[in-house]
Amino acid sequence: MLDRIRIVLIGTSHPGNIGAAARAMRNMGLEDLALVTPRCDPKDREAYSRASGANTLVDAARQYDALEEAVADCTLVVGASARSRHLPWPMVAPRALAESLPQALAPAEARVALVFGREDTGLTNAELQRCHQHVHIPTNPDFSSLNLAAAVQVLAYECRQAFLALDSDLQASSGESISESEQPFGVEWDNPPATHADLERFFVHLESTLTAIEFHDPDNPRQLMARLRRLFMRAHLDSMEMNILRGILGTIDKRLRERS
Amino acid sequence: MLDRIRIVLIGTSHPGNIGAAARAMRNMGLEDLALVTPRCDPKDREAYSRASGANTLVDAARQYDALEEAVADCTLVVGASARSRHLPWPMVAPRALAESLPQALAPAEARVALVFGREDTGLTNAELQRCHQHVHIPTNPDFSSLNLAAAVQVLAYECRQAFLALDSDLQASSGESISESEQPFGVEWDNPPATHADLERFFVHLESTLTAIEFHDPDNPRQLMARLRRLFMRAHLDSMEMNILRGILGTIDKRLRERS
Repeated sequence: MLDRIRIVLIGTSHPGNIGAAARAMRNMGLEDLALVTPRCDPKDREAYSRASGANTLVDAARQYDALEEAVADCTLVVGASARSRHLPWPMVAPRALAESLPQALAPAEARVALVFGREDTGLTNAELQRCHQHVHIPTNPDFSSLNLAAAVQVLAYECRQAFLALDSDLQASSGESISESEQPFGVEWDNPPATHADLERFFVHLESTLTAIEFHDPDNPRQLMARLRRLFMRAHLDSMEMNILRGILGTIDKRLRERS
Repeated sequence: MLDRIRIVLIGTSHPGNIGAAARAMRNMGLEDLALVTPRCDPKDREAYSRASGANTLVDAARQYDALEEAVADCTLVVGASARSRHLPWPMVAPRALAESLPQALAPAEARVALVFGREDTGLTNAELQRCHQHVHIPTNPDFSSLNLAAAVQVLAYECRQAFLALDSDLQASSGESISESEQPFGVEWDNPPATHADLERFFVHLESTLTAIEFHDPDNPRQLMARLRRLFMRAHLDSMEMNILRGILGTIDKRLRERS
């Protein structure tokens, strides 16, 4: 389970934080580190110094130009956020998130990304809206700004706790197959989850079709696409549903072309 | 409760770790830091730099020559340890420890110390044996050496979780407002949920429009409407989302009428 959890750091300024995050990850058994447009040299001396033996993770970290590339193959994307801004978004506590991961990772092809923003400004609204849900680490209201690596440490720790609990459950049930309650929706599902890349293609198509039918005005977008994102992301679409929705959009496009 | 938990750092070598520990503490609402024979200047620039606003804790930290002085007034002393050496000692996991603290701190005069050893060698056997119990943070067996401040972060986080749980229990029993964790999506939502009647009207409209664009054939329905129901019902649509979806369907209907 832990090997299918990716830590994504966006726009990190301090190489020490990348090293310390790598160390926290490896301590907790996570191995998959992705960096999106770091604002420092991730292989700076300070990164290795703070990694303190987790150098392999720093060396293996892949770099991306945008969040959507870093999470394209992920089936659940969770953004670390202080508080939902503007538009409320599904929000979980670290423990509830970690306890949901065995279910979310039950399908063999499932992958989870935990996304962390910049030291100074966190995640942008556009980045937050690419997430299925947000996770908030409860902090002292008078002093709430967690260090980046400390936030990674807390979530990685909770992931490991959930993994250890699962492991002992499995041992207790003498290695039987995953029970129905551990499936993503409490039962064995009929189709694999849609990937982030599928979803993003769908949203591009949706916006294009809504513009074509003149429901949506890209010059005056208001919150329309954000609200539709929020709706479809929290439903955790499966691949068949994704195909149906794309099929509906394609059919609308066709009818519009016939008209002109 | 949190104000009667003391973090004790013994023989710390790196001022940065003192600063980062202070920051982790303050983030989680702990304020009481004690240093036993630090092997560095706790007021070094690096300490303040990593404290990042928790300078008051660094400044207020008291220094002691020996563990027994630092914990003299404590009623429960817990040592952070990899594994009991030589002599087995009562050992708890971080969560079990944190969950036991409200009880341990029930007497007004009770005080708890969480004791952390040197970066390189941890706590000595003599120090471990001054503890009521040991706490072990589960780590990757292949890479088990946690950074000192990361260890403080994990335990401080668990203490805060236990404190928040206690706090919400108290609120629940005094009939106060619903906590965020009891909100449908973990945050206060911006619109009321759609009613069942709204939903049923939407599904009638959806089927009618999908038939009109010739995506759906009511004479050969297969599982289409069932799959769309399943999708939209599990998303728990709110009333604004309902209006948006109905608006999209209405606009498609209008374009089709324009064609004919």
